[in-house]
Amino acid sequence: MSVQPVLINGQWAASVGTETFQALNPKTREMLPERYPVSPWAEIEQAIVAADAAAKAARSLSGEHFARFLEIFADRIESRKSDFVAIAHRETALPVTPRLQDAELPRTTNQLRQAAAAAREGSWALPTIDTNANIRSVLGPIGPVAVFGPNNFPFAFNSAAGGDFAAAVAAGNPVIAKAHSSHPGTTRLFAELAQAAADEAGLPKGFIQLIYRTSHADGAKLVSHRLMGASGYTGSRSAGLTLKSAADAVGKPIYLELSSINPVYFLPGAVRERSAELVEQFAGSCLMGTGQFCTNPGLVAMVAGAETEAVITQIGAKFQAAPVGTLLGEGVLRNLSDAVQTLVAAGAEIVSGGGAGGGTGVSYHNTLLRVTGSQFLASPEDLQTEAFGNESLIVVAENAAQLVEITEHLEGNLTGCIYSANDGSDDALYDQLAPALRQKVGRLLNDKMPTGVAVSPAMNHGGPFPATGHPGFTAVGIPASLRRFGMLHCYDGVRPHRLPASLKEQNAASKPWRLVDGVWTQGDIGA
Amino acid sequence: MSVQPVLINGQWAASVGTETFQALNPKTREMLPERYPVSPWAEIEQAIVAADAAAKAARSLSGEHFARFLEIFADRIESRKSDFVAIAHRETALPVTPRLQDAELPRTTNQLRQAAAAAREGSWALPTIDTNANIRSVLGPIGPVAVFGPNNFPFAFNSAAGGDFAAAVAAGNPVIAKAHSSHPGTTRLFAELAQAAADEAGLPKGFIQLIYRTSHADGAKLVSHRLMGASGYTGSRSAGLTLKSAADAVGKPIYLELSSINPVYFLPGAVRERSAELVEQFAGSCLMGTGQFCTNPGLVAMVAGAETEAVITQIGAKFQAAPVGTLLGEGVLRNLSDAVQTLVAAGAEIVSGGGAGGGTGVSYHNTLLRVTGSQFLASPEDLQTEAFGNESLIVVAENAAQLVEITEHLEGNLTGCIYSANDGSDDALYDQLAPALRQKVGRLLNDKMPTGVAVSPAMNHGGPFPATGHPGFTAVGIPASLRRFGMLHCYDGVRPHRLPASLKEQNAASKPWRLVDGVWTQGDIGA
Repeated sequence: MSVQPVLINGQWAASVGTETFQALNPKTREMLPERYPVSPWAEIEQAIVAADAAAKAARSLSGEHFARFLEIFADRIESRKSDFVAIAHRETALPVTPRLQDAELPRTTNQLRQAAAAAREGSWALPTIDTNANIRSVLGPIGPVAVFGPNNFPFAFNSAAGGDFAAAVAAGNPVIAKAHSSHPGTTRLFAELAQAAADEAGLPKGFIQLIYRTSHADGAKLVSHRLMGASGYTGSRSAGLTLKSAADAVGKPIYLELSSINPVYFLPGAVRERSAELVEQFAGSCLMGTGQFCTNPGLVAMVAGAETEAVITQIGAKFQAAPVGTLLGEGVLRNLSDAVQTLVAAGAEIVSGGGAGGGTGVSYHNTLLRVTGSQFLASPEDLQTEAFGNESLIVVAENAAQLVEITEHLEGNLTGCIYSANDGSDDALYDQLAPALRQKVGRLLNDKMPTGVAVSPAMNHGGPFPATGHPGFTAVGIPASLRRFGMLHCYDGVRPHRLPASLKEQNAASKPWRLVDGVWTQGDIGA
Repeated sequence: MSVQPVLINGQWAASVGTETFQALNPKTREMLPERYPVSPWAEIEQAIVAADAAAKAARSLSGEHFARFLEIFADRIESRKSDFVAIAHRETALPVTPRLQDAELPRTTNQLRQAAAAAREGSWALPTIDTNANIRSVLGPIGPVAVFGPNNFPFAFNSAAGGDFAAAVAAGNPVIAKAHSSHPGTTRLFAELAQAAADEAGLPKGFIQLIYRTSHADGAKLVSHRLMGASGYTGSRSAGLTLKSAADAVGKPIYLELSSINPVYFLPGAVRERSAELVEQFAGSCLMGTGQFCTNPGLVAMVAGAETEAVITQIGAKFQAAPVGTLLGEGVLRNLSDAVQTLVAAGAEIVSGGGAGGGTGVSYHNTLLRVTGSQFLASPEDLQTEAFGNESLIVVAENAAQLVEITEHLEGNLTGCIYSANDGSDDALYDQLAPALRQKVGRLLNDKMPTGVAVSPAMNHGGPFPATGHPGFTAVGIPASLRRFGMLHCYDGVRPHRLPASLKEQNAASKPWRLVDGVWTQGDIGA
């Protein structure tokens, strides 16, 4: 079979690269027939130059143009729904239903449409006007954005259709999508529809481009190229840090989502009050999607006691009884296996599972480990090794004070959950714990599991390093996620007819909210 | 004379360091008598640990506490105005009037009071509520902030009283101030009043701390320490990049203001129309404060022609006739002299000045250079060397097209100014030029000089690298500058009584603006 083409400067063309790769069907452990090229630097640079030209051509376009593109794209995706589900299932082994068909694909088109609405309306860019000084500012496009999607969301975080893609485009930027090697076919299909939608919406040539793989060195050159504006990366910590280092050195913003173990606290009163519910919710959240979520609860903290022992036994039994899912690939299995070994070497004890197999194709037994709070405090770094997949570690603190101490030793995480008693008996402990946990996580939850990341304006899918590269930004949630891909454009004494529509005396037709002399308003100035 | 004490954990104490330094009086070229310590790592770490404890103790405080501190501090500064002016004049040679006494000190207390108002009111933190999903988010304190102030603003950007200090504190964070070595006495006096104000306002011990100097290696350890939240740095590019690299490696936000040559365009119609005004404004802006402003116009771009030649001659004459100011120190003189040599080596020709001397103490002749557009395009990097001080380079483009090409080769800058004809004859060229310049600068000006950075909510004192480290943030302007020192705190299903005041159903007493279900409002939910 011939090698699949790349999408550069508006054209699908054969890659000039000679190296190729294939994706795996994790269910059958067989390589899929399609071959995809590794793009050499010359090809990547061609894409960068085309993206720069597209960014320049797009300077005269309004949010309406990007909105139309995103909406046409969403419609086209829906018209090919069964194709997407089939190809993504083959490449990832994620369940067709309810996951790919009923949850992730609708979420993806919903994100694209929310981004479209934000682009059209314009409030995301925080137009700010000081009428006295005649100084005005608004976020404008930052320049071409490279998007590196992860393995675990072939749709919703896809580099050619997912959250970073939608946010970058809605903010007015061309995207160079780098497919994840585990689902290049899914990504190619997105890029095909995106190119067709871009043509229909009249976006400049090269606004959407696709390559499948680069060398690590070329990835670093891409994110640090002088013509690039920013990058978005979701994936492993080591590859992400290599890109970050290159981008940071030349001041190119790079937004990363790297790793997170998402601590969950079952406080003693909650355990007494509703242990069955806790066990049920936790096992469901932890094993869903074979545990391959960024917000998977990988660490549970409890205080020692008979009720805690009972909970651990029940979770262990649930883990053993539950069907074992298929992992996304051999790399995921290898990393999961290595991580469990690291945890065990650091003192964790296996409650259930702990070895490869148990499911169809690439799989690893549902695995529960436990460790004492003192052991955790002795090796906090090793015992926070992310075991991406159907695994979790229970940390049994000696007492409430140790629970707080454990919290102070946590690395940055996307989420942190505290389950406390309804009768108020945990409140004193909550008040000690929550302020410490607050600084360690982007999203603090009460009485619910962290999986399920709503696309809400108030969402924070972010958090302190190493969960992400900066604790002030969120990758999910519109309008905030768009702001990552804006640069602050200030206009000082600029003649009125030269101002962007959202900064003129008369507000733009879409009536974005503007901060005018300290007051948020949709109105015109002086009206 | 004994060595001046450091302020650590609420106490003025002798440094444990043995190395010391003295500041220079640039007017007399004599060292000032006071000796200041270089803090060794053990002392810096003590400050970090104290700042962490202060951050924890401050978790229960509201914006009102930080506001009170900032206001008391501003009052105390005003009560010691003549002392501040005297010591800063001795350490920097900046004119007492109108600069230090009439402009910079009032600006500094005004900034502190604006930050106080923002802290009290709370809108800066962008409280965002999704009532359907019951997800709420708001910016919260990021953790202890290290502030490294520059040499050129002993008050307004002072690490213990300036813009970064005010923003970090208003966002709820302890500050470790690192004095600039050129004005340690001024900084010490600020820290004394700050500590007294912190005591009066009831801030925790160690909320404000002061050290004077560290080794480069220890500076890097400080900004990357696990207990630190973020850093702010204004100063030279090389030292800033060393800190940035250390902070970036561990995902600690660091906001930098590094260097900027602030291009100014005199379009042909404007030159024809009002050349005398242009010459006057430019010379005034360029020589003010002996050119030692981040927004000093260091590059002027014009199109070749007889009128342009006349303008160059007139500016050259103005530069020669104007008094030569005193520079901030020997390092500034050395760098300026080196930069002029680099420019000359790259093909620039001296129109006037070009050597040390001409003023009292540390000084360098007012210097004007010129170069052709083609020469500029041949060595764009060298010819964008920042010559911090009373110098500027005129680039004479062959034609309008070359003017645009020059713009595409600019590095990131804080500002860019375009002077165009009032009769519209430059409008076609403006429309070509402005979109290119827009992406290169944080603040785009029409018909005015870039010096004079208003503390306005719409200000952007920022821009693409290497002007700063991230083009989305501003160091000046409230509330935006506070947001640099916030982390995004999301609350998902958190019980109502546990929410911060600005996220409860009933809005906080100060009535911050909140984005509730997509609408900005000061009201209560459901009201």
